Amino acid sequence: MSAPFSFQIDANCPSSGARSGVFNTPHGSIQTPAFMPVGTRGTVKGVLPRDLKASGSSMILANTLHLFLRPGPEAVRDLGGLHSFMGWDGPILTDSGGYQVFSMADLTQINEDGVTFRSIIDGSKVRFTPEIVMDVQRDLGADVIMAFDHCPSDPTDREQVQAATDRTHRWLDRCVSQWKNNGGLDRGQALFGIVQGGVFEDLRAKSVEAVCAHDLPGVAVGGVSVGEDRDHIRKAFAMSVPLLPPDRPRYLMGIGTPTDFFDAVKQGADLFDCVTPTRHGRNHQVYTSRGRINVRNEGWSRSTEALDPECPCPACTEFPVGSLRHYCKTNEMLAGSLLSLHNLWFFHGLLKRMREAIATGTLAALEAEILPRTELRFSPGNSN
Amino acid sequence: MSAPFSFQIDANCPSSGARSGVFNTPHGSIQTPAFMPVGTRGTVKGVLPRDLKASGSSMILANTLHLFLRPGPEAVRDLGGLHSFMGWDGPILTDSGGYQVFSMADLTQINEDGVTFRSIIDGSKVRFTPEIVMDVQRDLGADVIMAFDHCPSDPTDREQVQAATDRTHRWLDRCVSQWKNNGGLDRGQALFGIVQGGVFEDLRAKSVEAVCAHDLPGVAVGGVSVGEDRDHIRKAFAMSVPLLPPDRPRYLMGIGTPTDFFDAVKQGADLFDCVTPTRHGRNHQVYTSRGRINVRNEGWSRSTEALDPECPCPACTEFPVGSLRHYCKTNEMLAGSLLSLHNLWFFHGLLKRMREAIATGTLAALEAEILPRTELRFSPGNSN
Repeated sequence: MSAPFSFQIDANCPSSGARSGVFNTPHGSIQTPAFMPVGTRGTVKGVLPRDLKASGSSMILANTLHLFLRPGPEAVRDLGGLHSFMGWDGPILTDSGGYQVFSMADLTQINEDGVTFRSIIDGSKVRFTPEIVMDVQRDLGADVIMAFDHCPSDPTDREQVQAATDRTHRWLDRCVSQWKNNGGLDRGQALFGIVQGGVFEDLRAKSVEAVCAHDLPGVAVGGVSVGEDRDHIRKAFAMSVPLLPPDRPRYLMGIGTPTDFFDAVKQGADLFDCVTPTRHGRNHQVYTSRGRINVRNEGWSRSTEALDPECPCPACTEFPVGSLRHYCKTNEMLAGSLLSLHNLWFFHGLLKRMREAIATGTLAALEAEILPRTELRFSPGNSN
Repeated sequence: MSAPFSFQIDANCPSSGARSGVFNTPHGSIQTPAFMPVGTRGTVKGVLPRDLKASGSSMILANTLHLFLRPGPEAVRDLGGLHSFMGWDGPILTDSGGYQVFSMADLTQINEDGVTFRSIIDGSKVRFTPEIVMDVQRDLGADVIMAFDHCPSDPTDREQVQAATDRTHRWLDRCVSQWKNNGGLDRGQALFGIVQGGVFEDLRAKSVEAVCAHDLPGVAVGGVSVGEDRDHIRKAFAMSVPLLPPDRPRYLMGIGTPTDFFDAVKQGADLFDCVTPTRHGRNHQVYTSRGRINVRNEGWSRSTEALDPECPCPACTEFPVGSLRHYCKTNEMLAGSLLSLHNLWFFHGLLKRMREAIATGTLAALEAEILPRTELRFSPGNSN
């Protein structure tokens, strides 16, 4: 990989595929494995960039499709690019819009050239091709951009998966050409390819080969992300990762629970993103060291405890949980902001402990300590 | 006034009634004149306490009626009192609920003893008497609590105003007794009386006399606040202030525009509160050094300028105004938070300049410099 991007592995777990390292970008370094919060439309919802940074966020993600529709890539470019636009001077990654177009948009045409769909804003027709998506991401100006891939709707339908995977490879050729035409790494933007192949081992192997042939600065594993059966994700990742070059960052798209983190990290993943911490926060659901908490629970109404006694975030150190519960029940804006922020602190804190555990060979012990509590419900009655 | 409360005047304006000073409370000092942001239900909407403090807020206000209804005064007390409940270790003032009960509630009974009204939460009947309101504010635990007053609906209806003012004085006697029963200043809570009297000079004079007879730590001027004709407010204040003891803080309730600040400060007011900065911020309207801005204005969409080039707040220093406009148009939570925060910085910055101008005898010059721009609309076209 060439400057200004580099990836360095500092430690390998003795008992799993986990590794810890540093991914360097033009806007700073990311200690991996790392969780990337999602700033869908140009903000991580309800969280000021300074608070995002304090929570431990290093790289954040923004959605190409949303920003393409509003305010448009030229507007973002004219406003100084995504870093200026989002008030975030650290690393940024943009997705390609592929997943969102194929899973959520009102598609009107799919052919070899690209995809036409209707705008969720005004119903107008929008055309995405590999070239267009490269140009849009060039204008947005993230540090890392993603190839435009064809996501199959059912990762277990072999015929559909094969066709989508083959097309993804042809589109990747076009993405790489356009990215290079646009200046490639010299512009300070890295392109990551996306491995498809559904749940089929041979298709995954072929896809890894096709993607890695381009010798890109990083690789993502896709095609079975958000909303999919967790077993499919694990299977797809297990089939793909052992074949990936060890010296490139590996991005597992759309995951975000503590269980997922351990699964993915043990297999050798370096980067993840998910809306979990902020969406759950806005819905008043949080992860804590004692378990998952529904902050609206009546039982918290008179509790002077901290939401999470082990957490150094503003929600946990500046308010009794009874106040936070009141803010939730009265739909105060601050509830969503504080609880999103808490979840981010929790996720980044967990990833930090995982990185340290990889370095000291104690990842299995950390998993045994953390997971039995973290994913369980914790209610006011069951403290001990 | 006895410890832990004291009020000290540091400077008097040579050409108006304006004065600057320090009001000391158990939770810290307030440089006066000061603007108090409103934390209606226990939060200043969308603003983290740490950001509130950084904006220059020293004393904040919370609404007794809202907190009485949810979560209830016992809950706030059990959660450590308002300072703990709001995550705010600085001075806090609670209103008495009088204004809100008389102007907005569904009243079912008013008599000499008190008022019965229907809860806006569940329609249940609620009883407020001077004694109850003192006990509620005792439980909430603010540094400064307000007497329960009868607010006349029309400040120009002499008969109605006279009856309400007389009742307010009788209620004040009961408030003072109950406040003293509850521990008075020894509990670390100061009671402020409220001068009524509508727009009638003789009634105002009588009211000042009745209120000041109690020798309380501060005095508020009420009865013609929110939603009232600005002339009525100015008239009422002009009639009341010259008669007030100079050595007590004077609180003019419910005002909050730059023009109002100058009017009130020149007459000798020390404290104000209003929802203006946060409500306008949530509606994407801001005050700036160049004038009032509607951030949703299409003309800002490609502007890389700061919202207010002279403002050091996060919204102005970390984002181009074009981004803020995009956040407004896409209804991102962050828009309301950032713009509320900006308005708070602007208000506190203005009050700070006013305090300095009082000390240096330049308040009139400051007014001449600030007001012609501040209250005018500023649009993208008219920069110069």
